[in-house]
Amino acid sequence: MPPQKLKVAAAGLGRMGKRHALNFLNKAPRAELVAAFSPDPSELSWAKQNLEPYGVTLYDDYDKMIAQEGLQAVVIGTATSVHAEEAIKAMEKNLHVLCEKPLSTSIEICKSVVTAAKKHSHLKVMCGFSRRFDDSYRDAFEKTQQGLIGRPSILRSQTCDKHDPSGFFVAYAAWSGGVFVDMAVHDIDLTLWFFGDDVIPKSISAHGITAVQPDLKKYNDYDNAVGIVEFHNGKVAYYYCSRMMAAGQEDTTEVIGTEGKLTVNGNPQQNLVNYYHAGGVTREIPATYWGRFEQAFINETNEFTAACLDGTPLPLKLSNAVKAVEIGSFLQEALVSGKQLHFDEIGRRIEKAQL
Amino acid sequence: MPPQKLKVAAAGLGRMGKRHALNFLNKAPRAELVAAFSPDPSELSWAKQNLEPYGVTLYDDYDKMIAQEGLQAVVIGTATSVHAEEAIKAMEKNLHVLCEKPLSTSIEICKSVVTAAKKHSHLKVMCGFSRRFDDSYRDAFEKTQQGLIGRPSILRSQTCDKHDPSGFFVAYAAWSGGVFVDMAVHDIDLTLWFFGDDVIPKSISAHGITAVQPDLKKYNDYDNAVGIVEFHNGKVAYYYCSRMMAAGQEDTTEVIGTEGKLTVNGNPQQNLVNYYHAGGVTREIPATYWGRFEQAFINETNEFTAACLDGTPLPLKLSNAVKAVEIGSFLQEALVSGKQLHFDEIGRRIEKAQL
Amino acid sequence: MPPQKLKVAAAGLGRMGKRHALNFLNKAPRAELVAAFSPDPSELSWAKQNLEPYGVTLYDDYDKMIAQEGLQAVVIGTATSVHAEEAIKAMEKNLHVLCEKPLSTSIEICKSVVTAAKKHSHLKVMCGFSRRFDDSYRDAFEKTQQGLIGRPSILRSQTCDKHDPSGFFVAYAAWSGGVFVDMAVHDIDLTLWFFGDDVIPKSISAHGITAVQPDLKKYNDYDNAVGIVEFHNGKVAYYYCSRMMAAGQEDTTEVIGTEGKLTVNGNPQQNLVNYYHAGGVTREIPATYWGRFEQAFINETNEFTAACLDGTPLPLKLSNAVKAVEIGSFLQEALVSGKQLHFDEIGRRIEKAQL
Amino acid sequence: MPPQKLKVAAAGLGRMGKRHALNFLNKAPRAELVAAFSPDPSELSWAKQNLEPYGVTLYDDYDKMIAQEGLQAVVIGTATSVHAEEAIKAMEKNLHVLCEKPLSTSIEICKSVVTAAKKHSHLKVMCGFSRRFDDSYRDAFEKTQQGLIGRPSILRSQTCDKHDPSGFFVAYAAWSGGVFVDMAVHDIDLTLWFFGDDVIPKSISAHGITAVQPDLKKYNDYDNAVGIVEFHNGKVAYYYCSRMMAAGQEDTTEVIGTEGKLTVNGNPQQNLVNYYHAGGVTREIPATYWGRFEQAFINETNEFTAACLDGTPLPLKLSNAVKAVEIGSFLQEALVSGKQLHFDEIGRRIEKAQL
Repeated sequence: MPPQKLKVAAAGLGRMGKRHALNFLNKAPRAELVAAFSPDPSELSWAKQNLEPYGVTLYDDYDKMIAQEGLQAVVIGTATSVHAEEAIKAMEKNLHVLCEKPLSTSIEICKSVVTAAKKHSHLKVMCGFSRRFDDSYRDAFEKTQQGLIGRPSILRSQTCDKHDPSGFFVAYAAWSGGVFVDMAVHDIDLTLWFFGDDVIPKSISAHGITAVQPDLKKYNDYDNAVGIVEFHNGKVAYYYCSRMMAAGQEDTTEVIGTEGKLTVNGNPQQNLVNYYHAGGVTREIPATYWGRFEQAFINETNEFTAACLDGTPLPLKLSNAVKAVEIGSFLQEALVSGKQLHFDEIGRRIEKAQL
Repeated sequence: MPPQKLKVAAAGLGRMGKRHALNFLNKAPRAELVAAFSPDPSELSWAKQNLEPYGVTLYDDYDKMIAQEGLQAVVIGTATSVHAEEAIKAMEKNLHVLCEKPLSTSIEICKSVVTAAKKHSHLKVMCGFSRRFDDSYRDAFEKTQQGLIGRPSILRSQTCDKHDPSGFFVAYAAWSGGVFVDMAVHDIDLTLWFFGDDVIPKSISAHGITAVQPDLKKYNDYDNAVGIVEFHNGKVAYYYCSRMMAAGQEDTTEVIGTEGKLTVNGNPQQNLVNYYHAGGVTREIPATYWGRFEQAFINETNEFTAACLDGTPLPLKLSNAVKAVEIGSFLQEALVSGKQLHFDEIGRRIEKAQL
Repeated sequence: MPPQKLKVAAAGLGRMGKRHALNFLNKAPRAELVAAFSPDPSELSWAKQNLEPYGVTLYDDYDKMIAQEGLQAVVIGTATSVHAEEAIKAMEKNLHVLCEKPLSTSIEICKSVVTAAKKHSHLKVMCGFSRRFDDSYRDAFEKTQQGLIGRPSILRSQTCDKHDPSGFFVAYAAWSGGVFVDMAVHDIDLTLWFFGDDVIPKSISAHGITAVQPDLKKYNDYDNAVGIVEFHNGKVAYYYCSRMMAAGQEDTTEVIGTEGKLTVNGNPQQNLVNYYHAGGVTREIPATYWGRFEQAFINETNEFTAACLDGTPLPLKLSNAVKAVEIGSFLQEALVSGKQLHFDEIGRRIEKAQL
Repeated sequence: MPPQKLKVAAAGLGRMGKRHALNFLNKAPRAELVAAFSPDPSELSWAKQNLEPYGVTLYDDYDKMIAQEGLQAVVIGTATSVHAEEAIKAMEKNLHVLCEKPLSTSIEICKSVVTAAKKHSHLKVMCGFSRRFDDSYRDAFEKTQQGLIGRPSILRSQTCDKHDPSGFFVAYAAWSGGVFVDMAVHDIDLTLWFFGDDVIPKSISAHGITAVQPDLKKYNDYDNAVGIVEFHNGKVAYYYCSRMMAAGQEDTTEVIGTEGKLTVNGNPQQNLVNYYHAGGVTREIPATYWGRFEQAFINETNEFTAACLDGTPLPLKLSNAVKAVEIGSFLQEALVSGKQLHFDEIGRRIEKAQL
């Protein structure tokens, strides 16, 4: 008898949802995609062609899908606004959950998912921060753990998307939570990873511009923003988010320690080709985060599957997902208000005058 | 009813055979590994643990395996000496064949496989040259096709392994066909790809040393060798093979055209991490060809599967596999004999005195 | 009759003073070093061996030196505290002035030098910002001028020194003006160059730590600091200064425009050597800013000389030197006070409550 | 009294001659350019403007120039055909000699210069191989000396010029000695440096094409050529020369040892700028060898000067210059004849049949 496969359902078949569904279908030998849900007819029509023939039952109702017999886990790639509700419902049906980030743009709602997960502690509930599954970040983390850079003290990290002139990002800004919640949340999660998830912000500043998408202003958002988070334990992280890159995706991180430095993706590249021509030497770089992190998403799929089947620990804590959104929200507040935020040693907001 | 999957058997479960078996088992959603064969008890014992539980029937007899009902294809990763015989037997059983390179170190035997394949022209028969499936090489090839470098004229390519002090390569040299047949065959295949598979050698030279493995001399082999092949159409390829690299696998290619140049893997790298320390900036590089080409092997597995199921063309001709070994053998002859070889415009050997 | 050479005196023969003296002596074919001054006996003793034999008259009194007949220019490389006074005295003697940065750590004193220079408008008075004379920065600037990156909008720049465990930097902090005045002033000057020297800060934030030199705290200084300057014209610059680098000098700049990006020294390197070894591939990087900018200092020497002899314009305005120190001081204030600073559209400080 | 300066005369004011003259005039603080010669009126006219005003006496007759009183050294940058004669005449006038490479394209004539130099052993006589003065090559050599790569065993080196469609190289081929004598001579000199100048060739092969300059064939020359030299001590060097590069000068060297590898200029670059744009990331590379080696030529000028003044040893032996041309000529013979050359253990030519 072959080893049991994890029976997984996919909720949401949009840009990311589709990718999760296909990863569970094709790239996860220990998983079996058995169901998929979308409220969107065109997404369902795609699924009829691409999932149904492989034994995937389709639903236009999330509740019905999670009631499917034998189901063990659900991967949630729907709109952010329903992530939390769907995650909680899944737990109530005794299903493991892999949820796209963020759990919510509201801290309160994020916390409700964590509370639910604590109640169902036998379930694996993970919010997918793809960089945690990237070989290069992992190698950098191991080197940090080995003490190669001494005490990590400064972290610089950026999430920079290729400029998309279509206006997509303006519409998206209406509900994304803002550039620090939507983009820098990855860099903040890296900070929690490399600095330790017990770090407590001491002060936060942020500044931004709308250089190519002036309409972002109506949603209090920016297309380029820089923020600094100083922590109480003598560490500083600083972030740059941009939606204006000409060449492609530039997600770069530096971890600077007292005895060395590690960079990840300091020189973005599409592949190992260099083209020498009359104008010099050119290499291409990935157009999107998918081009950069495709393999990390596959790792995520397989490691989540293994954790569910084998009862092994997940490589990241659900509470981090809340903390990352929380710090992102503070940065966004600092950005929009033009005020520096301050916190005491147990993380409570204080007014500077009080200091 | 889900789409049909290709039922595949794996012959040979040594270093490469294992990898092929696992790729068909886990990385090829449209294939199903149903059988595996090895004459080696310890390999079979591995298979009992790692393949049998997933529905793979095990054999210690190749002929019995290929007689398994419903089988559609076989991947051959046994010792080189039996590649050809097994490939031909498989065709006679009406099976598609993916065979590890080389078909044989004997040109005559190589040709017998091509002849058999012509007789069974409805079957897909491929000798796996993994670089043909590598994204970077493919990108370079497309750029060449687009005319970005003008007319490709000079090709430099090297296959350089990390130094292995275990003595493995000395034993291996007894039957590998020599460094140009075993290693440079990949670089020669790239030459046929980028220059066109109709190129005809005009003259061939080679020189080598045994710098770290003096015992190779007893098999007329070398641990470092450089060879040049000049073609009749005004193109030159030159190759470097080494088993002495300190840092890891260094398989690098340059294609130099009349208007530009493309390099593939000019700067080998393990991943996207750079480590800054008191001695400078260091990046690691892959220890083995598997570290460099793992994804290419997965692509190969999937594209072979698709070609068998859909009847689409394979991306490389079987006859190239013969031609690459033939040129490799000439280089080896030039290397061992210390003589330059010459050929007329239809590829017949000539003595220089005749010129 | 050979063309006239510029007769130059060197004030200060410490670390930088020595280098300026030697550059005028040996690397500036159109200049002639005729005098040198130091109040320090050991520096004078060095000068007796290294300058006097080449016709350089030595002084232990600055006023006497600048009274030397025929003198045309002075290069000032003394302690920062006397830069301004010496520069003004030199102008009063009708001498051109090349002064090491900064003119002063006090804005008022800086301005007094500018006022003096305006009175002596026939004299060339320059505060040496070496990066303005670096080929790579110049190339990046030209590319920016050509419109290659659209409208420059974000500038990231860092001045990062190799960690010096000797304690030198602690003593130095007593009078350096702090990390943003001493180090980031170069990055701020680059900002004025690439963004235009008419930019007006809108808000400023900064955060820092003392990771390896805790004694810096007694001078209100930091060994790692990050600051952001948002300008009124929709541009943002952010800076990182560190005295903790393990590998060497890492002065890196990115200029990000609406249509492209330019990096300068994104991959620091000592030279063109890469060393492949069992641990990977390593390159060294310069240990000091001198290793990085030696040629820029030579260019500075020669261009200052040419401007004096030929009456051609200097490549940077003296007023920038004041503005750079001013912004540096604001960053330092923001760093030390933990407050965000705000400015109105004509650059006057405002309290946030007023907004 | 200031230290004495070396009084130098420059012979030849063409492309290279001009540069040598200006280096001695402006970049060599311990030298004084006192005379210059050219048979060419337009070169003399240039010298009237650029050298004469600085105290340089001009000549249209070499013999008269070297008779100038007080002269101590001559730098020879005339046509190759007169290098040797001028060098010998200079020695007879008791002058130190820095001669552009090669001494001659004839081995016999080269040797006559060495013989003359032996007779005047108190004189410094150097044939300028600029790479010996390049910081990167020197660093690589020191690392080799320190044993970082074990025993150097394979050397790959290339001299590749940017394609010049003007036809200059065709005319130049009439007297250059061919691509291996003109270009690879630098790479051969590097070989003598890194392998030791006592290496003796065992066998030599070469192949070439005329891809962009078919007219080169009338001078038996090639625009792309690859050659291999196998030495008797178990080392192999291989060379690539090209006049077809699209991007600029690509002079790259790898020294591969039994325990490591050093690369010099594996990634050619104009400066430290990278340009990110919609097509990727681009860096420029130097258009000419001068762009790559300008500083090496300055070092050469100053070290030759110091050796003459201080009686210190030159960093390279004159006999190497002969040996490099000799090996270059063998490569050229192998290239043109289509024959592999063989040598016995004391370097005498042998026919393969004899082996």
